[in-house]
Amino acid sequence: MGNYSIGLDLGGTNLRAAAIDRSGKILGRVSGSTNLSEGREAVIADMANAIAALREEFGRAGLAGVGVGVPGFIMIKTGVVTDSPNLPFFHNFPIRDELEARIGARVLLENDANAAALGEKWMGAGRNVDDLVLLTLGTGIGGGIICGGRVLHGYVGMAGEIGHLTVNPTGNPCGCGNRGCLEKHASATAVTVMARLVGLGDSLSAEDVFKLASAGDTKAQEIFSIIGESLGIALANLTNIFNFPLYLLSGGLLGAWDFFAPAMLNECRRRSPVYRATGTRIEKAELGNLAGLYGAAFLPFLE
Amino acid sequence: MGNYSIGLDLGGTNLRAAAIDRSGKILGRVSGSTNLSEGREAVIADMANAIAALREEFGRAGLAGVGVGVPGFIMIKTGVVTDSPNLPFFHNFPIRDELEARIGARVLLENDANAAALGEKWMGAGRNVDDLVLLTLGTGIGGGIICGGRVLHGYVGMAGEIGHLTVNPTGNPCGCGNRGCLEKHASATAVTVMARLVGLGDSLSAEDVFKLASAGDTKAQEIFSIIGESLGIALANLTNIFNFPLYLLSGGLLGAWDFFAPAMLNECRRRSPVYRATGTRIEKAELGNLAGLYGAAFLPFLE
Repeated sequence: MGNYSIGLDLGGTNLRAAAIDRSGKILGRVSGSTNLSEGREAVIADMANAIAALREEFGRAGLAGVGVGVPGFIMIKTGVVTDSPNLPFFHNFPIRDELEARIGARVLLENDANAAALGEKWMGAGRNVDDLVLLTLGTGIGGGIICGGRVLHGYVGMAGEIGHLTVNPTGNPCGCGNRGCLEKHASATAVTVMARLVGLGDSLSAEDVFKLASAGDTKAQEIFSIIGESLGIALANLTNIFNFPLYLLSGGLLGAWDFFAPAMLNECRRRSPVYRATGTRIEKAELGNLAGLYGAAFLPFLE
Repeated sequence: MGNYSIGLDLGGTNLRAAAIDRSGKILGRVSGSTNLSEGREAVIADMANAIAALREEFGRAGLAGVGVGVPGFIMIKTGVVTDSPNLPFFHNFPIRDELEARIGARVLLENDANAAALGEKWMGAGRNVDDLVLLTLGTGIGGGIICGGRVLHGYVGMAGEIGHLTVNPTGNPCGCGNRGCLEKHASATAVTVMARLVGLGDSLSAEDVFKLASAGDTKAQEIFSIIGESLGIALANLTNIFNFPLYLLSGGLLGAWDFFAPAMLNECRRRSPVYRATGTRIEKAELGNLAGLYGAAFLPFLE
């Protein structure tokens, strides 16, 4: 059983880890000392060291297990990462089994967006529902689906690829081979590309465009409105499919909510009879970049 | 417990009912004597009579319960039909409770497309999987989602509205208020509309267009290819979302599979990294118009 678990988040450039008890209280946190680009052995050692440090502090006996949020596709049954642009050296590597062998404790892997969705369900904006979808709006768009209180994995663990929903069949090209993928029309990257298209600047960040919108620039405001329309199409499809009570947005673009949400909700209302007919909520996630850490730590408690 | 159940299907113009045992064997079938347009009391009496006849034949003691497939939105918890274009007199009527009171047995309602999906999972093309999506291609497009062996209902029972997925944001208008809904681009109705647009004829049925395509008419063939593209966009989104092992198509358009499937699978392959990366199957359903009857009968066994 155990009264606490350790969650690891490999989401950014560094490792973050936390020991969290069954009530969701963070007992302690550590950060890795290694840049995640430094290669497989360095990253695995960093993970093992973080786990060891927390375990030393909070006791070996009480540890329920270790959950790890990883960016990329994960074969849930085998615990293998099959595609992770940020961690290419983990490609087809049995990271779960390797880590279990080093630390001598149960390890559970989860896609980082799925982990974030689970974290929001456990301790965040979704704590009062059992079914939700989370969209993370960053340089790309990730998705996590919680169905009956658990992550919906699908056949091999690739469910929730919401960033690759087609929102415009003749839209922008995507590296996945498709065109019109949501993440090419509604991510931070899409914001910067549109800023360039309308002549706002060639090297503006999404944050820069947000500042322009806040200062009253109508072109910048229109960009977020267009972002909102694409999000609304995707959310209309999701609400029509799932009829879940709650859809959450998180990630770097969330600060621009006031600029994109009106168009998003309008588009969703128009396109989804299910959204209109039921008390569907589309809201901001609450846990920010801690969501993945919470969700990873929750994994051992779900077993 | 009970060793058999009774399934009712209100899907067409007449009632169909069957007693089916736990192994899926049809013990006996009856058809209603009433046209479903004859009003509430006539239809309820017809349902009660069909149930009574089957129960008389197969025994009161062995009846596990009654399942009813109904076209329209169903509030699963309350057993109320909130919207059924074919059965307007059932709107907001407590059909489940009324029927239970008349027959003195447990009644379970299910949307007809959901029931068909469940039937295919139980005894049809999905019998070896626990997760599938069924699309019924008729005058409209219905959807049913089976997740973990059960119907995915969502918040109030409106999940699976796949006919209203947006496949083209600037596409054809839909009565739901949206434009570009799948069922306005890939149903039998869409086939007839396209036949008119390309000058094949003003009053051709989808079957007529299929015959033209079979006879080598390239315009008719192109119509099914366009249908396939729209289906492929919807299926790409569904596979990216669910990563389920199986997606089934059924309904009146299924006969034109050879004309629409190549474009459909091509579009799905291009647009869905999940479809490409996993052994996803997109196939024909097997039970035809018996699927809903099987699924309705399966409902009491799931309790």
